[in-house]
Amino acid sequence: MKVDSVDFFYLAMPKVTTAADGSQDALVVRVTAGGHQGWGECEASPLPSIAAFVTPMSHGACRPVSDSVLGETLDGPDDINRMAATIAYNSMDLLQAAHTWSGIEMALWDLLGRARGVPTYQLLGYAKAYPKVPYASVLFGTTPQQTLERARENRKAGFRAAKFGWAPFGESLPGDIAHLDAAREGIGADSILLIDAGQVFGEDVDAAAARLDAMERNRVTFFEEPFHGSAYEAYGNLSKRTRTVKTAGGEAAHNRHMAEHLIDFGGVGFIQIDCGRIGGLGPAKAVADYAVKRGVTYINHTFTSNLALSASLQPYAGLADHTICEYPTGLQQLARDLTRNHISPDGNGEIVLPDAPGLGIEINPDALTQYRVDVEIKVNGKTIFSTPSY
Amino acid sequence: MKVDSVDFFYLAMPKVTTAADGSQDALVVRVTAGGHQGWGECEASPLPSIAAFVTPMSHGACRPVSDSVLGETLDGPDDINRMAATIAYNSMDLLQAAHTWSGIEMALWDLLGRARGVPTYQLLGYAKAYPKVPYASVLFGTTPQQTLERARENRKAGFRAAKFGWAPFGESLPGDIAHLDAAREGIGADSILLIDAGQVFGEDVDAAAARLDAMERNRVTFFEEPFHGSAYEAYGNLSKRTRTVKTAGGEAAHNRHMAEHLIDFGGVGFIQIDCGRIGGLGPAKAVADYAVKRGVTYINHTFTSNLALSASLQPYAGLADHTICEYPTGLQQLARDLTRNHISPDGNGEIVLPDAPGLGIEINPDALTQYRVDVEIKVNGKTIFSTPSY
Repeated sequence: MKVDSVDFFYLAMPKVTTAADGSQDALVVRVTAGGHQGWGECEASPLPSIAAFVTPMSHGACRPVSDSVLGETLDGPDDINRMAATIAYNSMDLLQAAHTWSGIEMALWDLLGRARGVPTYQLLGYAKAYPKVPYASVLFGTTPQQTLERARENRKAGFRAAKFGWAPFGESLPGDIAHLDAAREGIGADSILLIDAGQVFGEDVDAAAARLDAMERNRVTFFEEPFHGSAYEAYGNLSKRTRTVKTAGGEAAHNRHMAEHLIDFGGVGFIQIDCGRIGGLGPAKAVADYAVKRGVTYINHTFTSNLALSASLQPYAGLADHTICEYPTGLQQLARDLTRNHISPDGNGEIVLPDAPGLGIEINPDALTQYRVDVEIKVNGKTIFSTPSY
Repeated sequence: MKVDSVDFFYLAMPKVTTAADGSQDALVVRVTAGGHQGWGECEASPLPSIAAFVTPMSHGACRPVSDSVLGETLDGPDDINRMAATIAYNSMDLLQAAHTWSGIEMALWDLLGRARGVPTYQLLGYAKAYPKVPYASVLFGTTPQQTLERARENRKAGFRAAKFGWAPFGESLPGDIAHLDAAREGIGADSILLIDAGQVFGEDVDAAAARLDAMERNRVTFFEEPFHGSAYEAYGNLSKRTRTVKTAGGEAAHNRHMAEHLIDFGGVGFIQIDCGRIGGLGPAKAVADYAVKRGVTYINHTFTSNLALSASLQPYAGLADHTICEYPTGLQQLARDLTRNHISPDGNGEIVLPDAPGLGIEINPDALTQYRVDVEIKVNGKTIFSTPSY
């Protein structure tokens, strides 16, 4: 079959705030080929990602993403890999291309799975999908008391793991210690505690290392993104100073090289991949294979809808020893409404991928209308993009 | 003073081809502050870069570039660095932001130099600008004979150094050897010969290494971009297999970390920085400082107008031992017409930066009209961007 169409739906909450909450908007992608449909989601910033698909060519190594996708043959996984390689080469100077392609690539795997009637993880080479222990991804409270309460709520909701992240973490050492103690107290002694610094320490290894004692005392499993995503040297230096806590990162990787370098040069113990940024499931699976070889644990990074969650779980679904997964719990209504079915913890409190073709997630067309952001882009008077109807 | 406005002018040749020629379009940036103007140029893909400036916010760590620039204080270099740090944090999930910011940052340095009546390189900490030996950047011919002729023309034009690049290089080993021999023959025994593979070998170290004998026999000074810009491991492995030729790369770096990693992990002997991509002159100067410490040679990467050329030369203008510079010779008319004055080899065949305030380049307003590409972006019926009048 051939890729007949690629449509982008930019959705947003009526009010978007400066909270570090990626579920406030979404760029949903629909691909059609051979009478089948597939769906994906780009992360993040819808307008530049749309622009990267439709933009006029700048030169041979800076072509729009559309050039490497529309009309292309799609008969199996090799065709997806071929398109990925074409984009890496023909759009090498178009920085945003990786994010645009990520959502399309996801949709291609969904479509291929649906066309063949098999879950996508089987197309990636896994015989089965192992259940994962979800960690609830929540923001620190503004006070330690609020963090304590959020941690308790999380425990009550049945989660055996929780990740606390972002501001006010990093603002003061005593404050951070109080938040760490509160988080551990709230989730209880037997739960897994994870911390996400949201890059707040820049490249200041000493500042990040000053938090290690309190983290190790509170049995923090990983310390995520202390630094800028590309600051491998800072990661490497911090990794050498840890004892029980491991460093984690990788969500900013927009190709598999970046994730592999974070493993090799940054010494992370956990590699976190966002399929909506790294170029989709193909490179994510390659990173999962690489992590296994290097003795590093793979985890999804997901802060948007259950469509993105399903996509992000597929690349390591078959790795029985990589047992935890990110599971966003504070999603905005848009991200909940986007899908008809949802991935929820089962009776054991574990996450199991849908046993259904493709990504196993059904899009709710009403959400595409309700949260729709209309975009129109004209170049020299000609409309090169306008939001499609569902 | 405060940043009062940032305007984007998207320009293009009437016909843009798939040639690997970055001068076929341009995104020119005008910044005004305190009654002064500054000009810069983003590299590449104008539409996504414009979109990254005006896009609605996705969340607190995915804000439009405009949020960190408009209305900001601009009284000295520290203010530019502060804006850069704000963007790195507040737009961390907006991939294209680095390219958008690059052109703005360039314009801010131009403006600051003009406001103070000093060349920008002085603001970067250099007392003087040393002349550089320009290498003409040309594409390989389709046949070795054509490469020979281009090399001879280059020699006749007075260049003491030439870089040949891109297709058909990499297509066959015997063909590549013939092109290498032809290039050396054409430029003469006493000229500097440089080769740019345009990432054609992906990550295939053996394929790239197979060209080393012919390169070393032809006294090639550097072997540029054999691999994907982020494939540090491949760079590192090839660098270990070279004897006299050195590897070169870095043009894809969109932050200084990437360039530093290519030095540390890729073992390049030459680090090539495009100020229109790395975030402007500030991070480029930081890479130049780093290169000096590591015994690596810094070179500009420039394939567009003389405005971009001046900007790209400033960060290493004061490094007397870093003597060669990229000097694009096959520029499209648009790139020539864009500036009123031009940077040309002097009587010694060397390039000297304009001894004038800022970047020392005057924009030709007629070119902004003649090559203008009109862009209009509407979101929910509201126009968030339309090409400004000059």
